[in-house]
Amino acid sequence: MSSGEFDLIARYFAPLAGAGAPAYGLSDDAAILSPPAGYDLIFTKDALVAGVHFFPDDPAGLVAQKALRVNLSDLAAMGARPLGYLLALSLPKNMAGIEDWVAGFTSGLKKDQDEFDLSLFGGDTVSTSGPLTLSVTAIGTVPKGGALRRNGALAGEDIYVSGTLGDGALGLKCLKDNIDNPSLIKNYLLPTPRLALGQKLSGIASSALDISDGLAGDITHICALSGLGATIDAELIPVSDAAGKLLESFPAYNDLIWNGGDDYELLFTAPEHMADEIKDVSASLMLPLTKIGHMTEKPGIVILDDKGKNLLQGQRGYRHF
Amino acid sequence: MSSGEFDLIARYFAPLAGAGAPAYGLSDDAAILSPPAGYDLIFTKDALVAGVHFFPDDPAGLVAQKALRVNLSDLAAMGARPLGYLLALSLPKNMAGIEDWVAGFTSGLKKDQDEFDLSLFGGDTVSTSGPLTLSVTAIGTVPKGGALRRNGALAGEDIYVSGTLGDGALGLKCLKDNIDNPSLIKNYLLPTPRLALGQKLSGIASSALDISDGLAGDITHICALSGLGATIDAELIPVSDAAGKLLESFPAYNDLIWNGGDDYELLFTAPEHMADEIKDVSASLMLPLTKIGHMTEKPGIVILDDKGKNLLQGQRGYRHF
Repeated sequence: MSSGEFDLIARYFAPLAGAGAPAYGLSDDAAILSPPAGYDLIFTKDALVAGVHFFPDDPAGLVAQKALRVNLSDLAAMGARPLGYLLALSLPKNMAGIEDWVAGFTSGLKKDQDEFDLSLFGGDTVSTSGPLTLSVTAIGTVPKGGALRRNGALAGEDIYVSGTLGDGALGLKCLKDNIDNPSLIKNYLLPTPRLALGQKLSGIASSALDISDGLAGDITHICALSGLGATIDAELIPVSDAAGKLLESFPAYNDLIWNGGDDYELLFTAPEHMADEIKDVSASLMLPLTKIGHMTEKPGIVILDDKGKNLLQGQRGYRHF
Repeated sequence: MSSGEFDLIARYFAPLAGAGAPAYGLSDDAAILSPPAGYDLIFTKDALVAGVHFFPDDPAGLVAQKALRVNLSDLAAMGARPLGYLLALSLPKNMAGIEDWVAGFTSGLKKDQDEFDLSLFGGDTVSTSGPLTLSVTAIGTVPKGGALRRNGALAGEDIYVSGTLGDGALGLKCLKDNIDNPSLIKNYLLPTPRLALGQKLSGIASSALDISDGLAGDITHICALSGLGATIDAELIPVSDAAGKLLESFPAYNDLIWNGGDDYELLFTAPEHMADEIKDVSASLMLPLTKIGHMTEKPGIVILDDKGKNLLQGQRGYRHF
């Protein structure tokens, strides 16, 4: 580490850790956590690269919040409450305005630490000849044995999604095509991890995950682990007013609703007799929870349009490699 | 995530996680750990960038082992036993031979998982327009309240280091200058985390850290946290035969012994009355533990040569920014 790095850490990152346990102002080699009794710990890690997962000139605070939130969304999918996170930050060598960027970035972290009640446990800042890259490891807790998994779905169970789908992918489209639509763009830049929902679904949902790669791709994980298929009614997929309006002008974007990714809504399965409890959860959180289909004995994913045609033509999510 | 990414994960990474808890073959959004009763958990995270922390054409397996080991070295400094790790891997877009690289990389991970008894808890693989970048979050355990910290040193206490210093930095020099010295080069490429030592130092050492940025730089952390200084006798700093021999030919490299970094030995302080216990630990581990100086009331770091001259001229470790 260099003196420049120490300065950045002391000025901007140490306050995010706080003076006490587990990270003691980042003064040690590692953080020391006394795990709360009666809880399991949940661990997840996501990486983001400028130019791939966000635009290099996105405001630093939004990049920070997005990096945290995609990880918090994984915690939400497990039914976990956030506890803390570690951060690795690779900053471009000779980056112009590096301190301003770090100041904005850490103020974004602070905002979401306060909103979602977690703190910085540690991390590393290094330099790179490539684009700005960061990874977050998020840590959460669930009551012992209460984690939501992906593997518990049964044939005939209902399939639900939270909120509305497609807003994130359409927001990204708007950014790329210079379409002025602040509401959708905000959904892309600043997804909402469904933490409260995840915590309430323990004991109700038989399987759950967060939709980050698109409904059609992500539901295959639940199907593969249960050896089942899924039939979804495209007409039932919840779409926001903003997305619906945009799709009237750009019907070609329609498949982004089930194939676009960046939703960060929860997809979950539940037996039919849980319908009332799910309605109660929806009401208490003021968050739509919409039944969009059901699990089938027959493997394969089918998304039916209003004419009974399967809309899926083997399309895939964004191909990294 | 793309289908290519799923293939890599299923083929190469899932076996590193194992089928059961906490990572269930990487099939969930996150890992579920039931923390062992009576233990604190230790968290650390380090990032490595090709061209900065390793050579782009270093064997993939060695890159993997080094990435794990620099993190395990932080666990060692806290007195922790490793439990698991999460990995974020940013692979260059259109990287030639990507599958071979990943195969070599994961076989290096497997080797060190077996050697140090830990497993993969989760992670993320993404693509980048920049150099290959990875970060590891390592998780370990210490008996409750038994973690070694950096802040407990007292004036008059002895300062010890494990092993020998300078081998890593001299190994890097050999690589860069095409000097044929396999022993030193191996020390650079494949440091040894002092895990057994860290675990034995709980209750003996008053403060500890791992030397990653060089003795002179790293001891400032202990001094800063205790409000003390340190006086070190350069003649006492342990040097390997290989390093000693190289320095006869290249005396200009001498300062790499205290200023070079990449040692990954433990530096610790202890009261004088612990000397016998420290000898016992050294004997039981067959690892030299050498007293090189003592903590002083007077702030400031002094490294004295045989003529009583302070060798430190305000030199710093590698400057990232």
